[in-house]
Parts: sequence; structure tokens; C-alpha cells
Amino acid sequence: MTNTNNRNRARFITLEGGEGVGKSSNLAFVQNWLNQQGIRAVTTREPGGTEAGEKVRALFLGDEALTPLTELLLMFAARAEHISRVILPALNKGVWVVSDRFCDASYAYQGGGRGIETEFIAALEQRVLQGLQPDLTLLLDAPVEVGMARARRRQKIDRMESENHAFFENVRTAYLQRAAQSLGRIRIIDATLPLEGVQQQIAAALKTII
Amino acid sequence: MTNTNNRNRARFITLEGGEGVGKSSNLAFVQNWLNQQGIRAVTTREPGGTEAGEKVRALFLGDEALTPLTELLLMFAARAEHISRVILPALNKGVWVVSDRFCDASYAYQGGGRGIETEFIAALEQRVLQGLQPDLTLLLDAPVEVGMARARRRQKIDRMESENHAFFENVRTAYLQRAAQSLGRIRIIDATLPLEGVQQQIAAALKTII
Repeated sequence: MTNTNNRNRARFITLEGGEGVGKSSNLAFVQNWLNQQGIRAVTTREPGGTEAGEKVRALFLGDEALTPLTELLLMFAARAEHISRVILPALNKGVWVVSDRFCDASYAYQGGGRGIETEFIAALEQRVLQGLQPDLTLLLDAPVEVGMARARRRQKIDRMESENHAFFENVRTAYLQRAAQSLGRIRIIDATLPLEGVQQQIAAALKTII
Repeated sequence: MTNTNNRNRARFITLEGGEGVGKSSNLAFVQNWLNQQGIRAVTTREPGGTEAGEKVRALFLGDEALTPLTELLLMFAARAEHISRVILPALNKGVWVVSDRFCDASYAYQGGGRGIETEFIAALEQRVLQGLQPDLTLLLDAPVEVGMARARRRQKIDRMESENHAFFENVRTAYLQRAAQSLGRIRIIDATLPLEGVQQQIAAALKTII
């Protein structure tokens, strides 16, 4: 551990993926796995993670129809808050951060899903993130049918989850395109495997950054 | 009236200004004045004007500290909703729209007041407004001390109103600079005059666009 602790910069890890791919349970796995390596890590989520961000989340997942542009701007409003109040303060204290979704989700959902042009999302990313990028992004990937079937088993379907099949196909495609362009930052995790197999892939990816 | 009705395009009018300059009472005056000319007009406000927008307003004027970038993005998120659900549908039906604040407020408050660079605000404006500009903007202007004294007489001070003197000087300066660059769209109304004098100026400005 001494050797590892010398390379002491805290890392920023994000989990991404469509509905029903198992982000929640794997988020807990990532935190436990890091803790077992003696690494302090906090978990957080988007939209949300701050008082204002959780209110945006409620608005976002509520029943009101929102224009695609409103969705995108709300996401980045919450993200600005999240970065400056949660993510950067933790990293600056040497605490690793594991976030359930981050900026790639805007490219996937508001870009791929809603059709907002990538250039505008990139302009927001540049101004709001100011160079902050995850050290590792775990993209939990599964065919839309598989994720949808799992999501439907949950009790309450939120506004995003009630979108149609084509929407989620577009989300998945945008995620995969982003992974292809990410120069290795985004690792595709096969989420169709049994949980143990998924976690083996995640652990292997985590080992590359500790 | 026949002659006026031939030039039938509905106009978009905005009221702008710092705290305590009398926007609310003059908004009602504008609507009444238009109605007296036989013009149908709806009044609305920013942030707000839609279901989601009013929730953003509550968040915006609530007690939580928000980063300047969050403020700006929330304003434009609400504005995207406002434009597509309220302003454009009314104008397209031939109904005039009178809004208590619009995009100039972002330049004044988040630009002048909070120090966000004009270029980023302009990028948001270009994408979100897509060419929509007010036909006339009434900028109710008064020295900061005058407005602050009036605002203090109200019962409850919100998060924006509790900012300090320097903030409001910067807001006023940004508004006046914007008026200077607006090629006549923004009319400066001397809000230090008695109400009747203010309303005479407003009526004179309105006559130029009917």
C-alpha cells in the first residue's frame, strides 16, 4: 500500500449507462472495492448530489414535460453546483469521488436521445467542467430490451424511464460512440453477465487506475 | 384602429431594471395601456411563467447559495421553457407578450453582477432564443440607493435582493451598457420620477411600436 499511497492524487470515477443496467448496485461495489484497497471514496449522483441539485433532480424526473434544451441546461446547472461543492472539494482533500452519471450522460440522453447537437453540449461542457474529466468511466452496457425489462420490474417508472424504445437505442448508441472516442477513459462493461461477472470486469478496470 | 390592426404582428415587450424600480406596477400599466388600444396582451415573468419555470424561480430565490454558473444555467433553462411554451405560442396567435424580465437580465445580473463573461452568455442567448428578441425593452432605471430604499420597504427580502450595494451598481451599469448597444430596442425610463411621469415615458415608448 505504501507504494500506491505515494501516488496520492485522488481519482474521479463515473458510472454511466441506460436504464436497468445496474448502476446502483455497482456503485456500491465500486465504493466497497476502493475501501478494501484502503482508499477513501465518496459516492454521489447526477442530477443531484447537492441541495439545489436534488431539487433539479425532482424537477427533472417529475411529471412536467420539459423541452430538450431545458433538460440540458438544468443538467448543466446542477452539474456546476455538483462540481464546485462536492467533486472538487473532495478531490482536493485527497478523497476519491464515484459519481452515478456525469457529463457523458448529457451527450447520451440530451444529445443522442433528444437530438441536441453535440457542439452545443461541448460548449457547455467546456465552460462548466473547466478541464475536469473522470479518470475512469465505467459504461454499463446492455441491449435496450434487457435494461428495459429490468427497469420495468421496479415499482415506479420516472419520466425518463417512460421514454420509448427508439429513445433508448439512441442513448445507447451515443454512449458507445462516446466510448469509442474517449481514448480509453470510458471502459465498456458487459452488463448482461451475472453480477459476479460484471464486478470482475469493474475490478479489472479499477486496477488500471490505482 | 382599423389601420393599426392591419399591421397585425404581435409584439414582444420586456421590462427590465434593478430592485425597487417599480417593474410590477408598471407591468400592469403596460398591459392596461395596450388593452385600451384594443390590443390583446398577456403578461408573464422570468424566472417563471411556466410550471417548471416557477419551480426554478423558487430554487433561484430560495436560501441556498448557488454558484454564478448555476444561476445563469437555471435562468436559461427556465427561459427555454418560457419561450417555447408561453412566448412563441402567444405571439403566433397574434397576442402581444409583456414579460417582467427576459434575457437582458442575465447580462445584467449574472454578467455584470456575478462577473460571468459576456461571450458565454451570448452563446446561450444565441442557442436558446434562436433569434427571438423583444420589439421593445423598457429599462426602468434609478440610482441604486433609490431602488434599494424602496425594496427595503417590502416585507420579505429574497436572495437576490439581499446582495450588497456594489453588486447592484454592477447590475445597473451592465443594464445601461446593454441599452447603449441595443440600437434603440432598450428605452431607458427614468424611474426616479413620480409614477405618473414614469407612465408618461412608458406610454411614449409604447406608441413607437404600435
